[in-house]
Amino acid sequence: MTRPDPRPISFNLFEMACVGHISHGLWVHPDNTRDRFNDIDFWTSQARLLEDGLFDAVFLADVIGTYDGYRGGAETALREAVQIPNNDPLVIIPAMAAVTKHLGFAATFSTTYEPPFAFARRASTLDHLTRGRFGWNVVTSYLPNAARNFGLEDEVEHDTRYAYAEEYMDVVYKLWEGSWDDDAVVADRAGHVYTDPAKVRYIDHVGPRHRVAGPHLSQPSPQRTPVLFQAGSSGAGRAFGARHAEAIFVGGHDLASYRDVITDVRRQAVENGRAAEDVKAYAMAVIIVGRTEIEAQRKADEFALLSRAEGYLAHAGGGGIDLAAYPPHMRMADVLEAEARAGRDHRNRTRFYRADGTVADALHEITRFDRPPFVAIGTPTQVVDRIEEWVARTGLDGFNLRQFLTPGTAEDFIELVVPELQRRGLYRISYEDGTLRERLFGQGRARLPGSHPAARFRGGANLGGSRTAADDLVPTGAVAG
Amino acid sequence: MTRPDPRPISFNLFEMACVGHISHGLWVHPDNTRDRFNDIDFWTSQARLLEDGLFDAVFLADVIGTYDGYRGGAETALREAVQIPNNDPLVIIPAMAAVTKHLGFAATFSTTYEPPFAFARRASTLDHLTRGRFGWNVVTSYLPNAARNFGLEDEVEHDTRYAYAEEYMDVVYKLWEGSWDDDAVVADRAGHVYTDPAKVRYIDHVGPRHRVAGPHLSQPSPQRTPVLFQAGSSGAGRAFGARHAEAIFVGGHDLASYRDVITDVRRQAVENGRAAEDVKAYAMAVIIVGRTEIEAQRKADEFALLSRAEGYLAHAGGGGIDLAAYPPHMRMADVLEAEARAGRDHRNRTRFYRADGTVADALHEITRFDRPPFVAIGTPTQVVDRIEEWVARTGLDGFNLRQFLTPGTAEDFIELVVPELQRRGLYRISYEDGTLRERLFGQGRARLPGSHPAARFRGGANLGGSRTAADDLVPTGAVAG
Repeated sequence: MTRPDPRPISFNLFEMACVGHISHGLWVHPDNTRDRFNDIDFWTSQARLLEDGLFDAVFLADVIGTYDGYRGGAETALREAVQIPNNDPLVIIPAMAAVTKHLGFAATFSTTYEPPFAFARRASTLDHLTRGRFGWNVVTSYLPNAARNFGLEDEVEHDTRYAYAEEYMDVVYKLWEGSWDDDAVVADRAGHVYTDPAKVRYIDHVGPRHRVAGPHLSQPSPQRTPVLFQAGSSGAGRAFGARHAEAIFVGGHDLASYRDVITDVRRQAVENGRAAEDVKAYAMAVIIVGRTEIEAQRKADEFALLSRAEGYLAHAGGGGIDLAAYPPHMRMADVLEAEARAGRDHRNRTRFYRADGTVADALHEITRFDRPPFVAIGTPTQVVDRIEEWVARTGLDGFNLRQFLTPGTAEDFIELVVPELQRRGLYRISYEDGTLRERLFGQGRARLPGSHPAARFRGGANLGGSRTAADDLVPTGAVAG
Repeated sequence: MTRPDPRPISFNLFEMACVGHISHGLWVHPDNTRDRFNDIDFWTSQARLLEDGLFDAVFLADVIGTYDGYRGGAETALREAVQIPNNDPLVIIPAMAAVTKHLGFAATFSTTYEPPFAFARRASTLDHLTRGRFGWNVVTSYLPNAARNFGLEDEVEHDTRYAYAEEYMDVVYKLWEGSWDDDAVVADRAGHVYTDPAKVRYIDHVGPRHRVAGPHLSQPSPQRTPVLFQAGSSGAGRAFGARHAEAIFVGGHDLASYRDVITDVRRQAVENGRAAEDVKAYAMAVIIVGRTEIEAQRKADEFALLSRAEGYLAHAGGGGIDLAAYPPHMRMADVLEAEARAGRDHRNRTRFYRADGTVADALHEITRFDRPPFVAIGTPTQVVDRIEEWVARTGLDGFNLRQFLTPGTAEDFIELVVPELQRRGLYRISYEDGTLRERLFGQGRARLPGSHPAARFRGGANLGGSRTAADDLVPTGAVAG
């Protein structure tokens, strides 16, 4: 098939600082280097590979607790290395930034537990160090164990988490966009003035959950607010994405459900005064490519053989339903009722099941390694045909490439798929200079557009009082020369 | 002079991710590159320089608020770039780690505001990425503005901060030392077992300020607990150092006061069951070296000329007394009384003044750029003579080299002082392999000794219940194959 107006499709590598991210069991493959994830060379060599392959970015997932809902505990998650052990993605990015010039980095960070003032500075530092290549995947935390790692008894309720997240965004926007004017730093050596204090403001945020005085400690970074990624298909999740996200990571059961989510979020974005095209949409992609169909299928079979159902069950049970506690023939609708009677509410959780199916159906759904609907197994031509079809029919802008082997999945993609994409005008030939935001939205747009809610704090508007640092000078009894 | 038993003296570069750390005004010098501190190349080139110069480590100070006590606000701190703008040191280290193999890194992080669970994982990640070259400078936060950035009205009272810090250390020790056994990770590909769940524990910490379930998310890093640095000369500060610190950063008015602090902390350490030699002692060093005395003095004069009294006053006023509010002839004892009447208690603050002096004396003390008693200005021979004298007479193990010019101060030291130190057997000729802790305490000691309080949690001892991840397996209704 052909598309009338070919435009580049974005590809990020989907990563996580752990052994088993979402391809459970695959770490044992002799060509897989996942068990070297603690080593800095694992990350720097991967970053170089992705930059050689002209990827948009590496997208780092994260979790701040253990999946201990399956069979009553963390045993399976540990044995199968289901996202534990894991490391902090924020401190891995600078190592990759030190050996690259263009590759982007998006890291997952939760708005639920850590103080926004510290995160805002950490993010600004990352945006400085990467010269504007930093993105933030905004999440709220749902794992019960994560809550218990941060002083709470149990997870924060879903809609409350989104209310927390709204306030969190306000705080960090005020710090990133409102606290320092663009021309605050003058660095005037002759005049002995580094910063003009009249152009730096306290934010004086006072909200139900956070009180933050400011000023922000970092001077404005290339992008100020990092590129905002977000995933979340619930009602509150979509509304949040339509308000804040510059790129949404979409899930769904089939092509139509992807299209519907994307259409809905963009419609809501327009209602919020934003442009539909200001919300890019990404899907996870399973791409298993070979020089021949048989070679590709052989790889897929090998991956399926190594996949571990126990790993997927532990993963699914982390914040959700412990399917091991119910008989296989039970209807999921009845399981949900039983869970509700036990005081567990799953209404707003990410669904991996159909309510009209059975426990066995849900188990099957969970343990298919090719669970995301976008699956392309075949020759480069077949793979790119399918990519084109999905992009045309869903409104997707790009994909997060799921890894089966590290670095094999990315190497295969770069060797076999990229040339076919380039032949069709769907992939860059070389990087252009600029920030990650400019890569997504075009040259000259290093900063958020004026229609984004973060922009309402610019120039000190909508801050509590808008005190500048020059406002607080008081008469003085003694000044030393 | 000669010393009977020459042993290497440690040198760290004293750094901070900002324009003006402690040499206020110097950033305007034409050879100073401090205003490039946002750039990753500033840090990677500096790391390479220090590794070429065989430094022990780069020691990164930090502050999480603004010095807004002088003349009622932050104006002066901003204009003079007194530690604002600044960036997060934790995310700068991985960039330096990516381009070095031996240089150590110590970063300042406060126990007062951020959740210990998140910090513990961040620190473990840094220890993994640096292959055991990470140190933590443990501080409590005293800046009032920092408190207001983290939800509080004013700073946490001094002794309360130290009580918080004690609990904080317990939490992170439990995570670093107690949660995972050394042989928990088996990475058995044939058996499909990454981690043995029986060797991973919840920590179930319940304390007055923190509740943390665990397990720790990172697997054991080369050093587990990073090398623990600490500064603090108050009573509570010394007691904390004697209990926890592997290296104390000492201040004082003269050689004798350094010696007394070091002797006192080591005596207290022994009372705690630790070895005196398990507490290394560092002082800040002003070293201005030239090929001739005249050349060195010319540099010192140039630095003095560029030093900015206003910068030092803003710095001193950050958490302390606004000296600008009092007449120069007033006695400091009377100032303290006036402050106490106004509800401001400075008894436990770091002192930059003598109570028997006047405000003018305190101003003089503050604005001397050579305030730390260890000052060596002269030829390499003169500088090293003075270093040897201080080490012999105080019990110091090393120095944090204060920068006047970046990279000039380190370059001068490497070019002129290092060869003289090496000639006398006081400085390494090449790096040995190993972790930062082994560099300080000898090969084979990558981990804390058994006498350190962190060690009491090893093997799951002294944890709340010592649940392992294998203890929570429950009977199950359905397990998918």
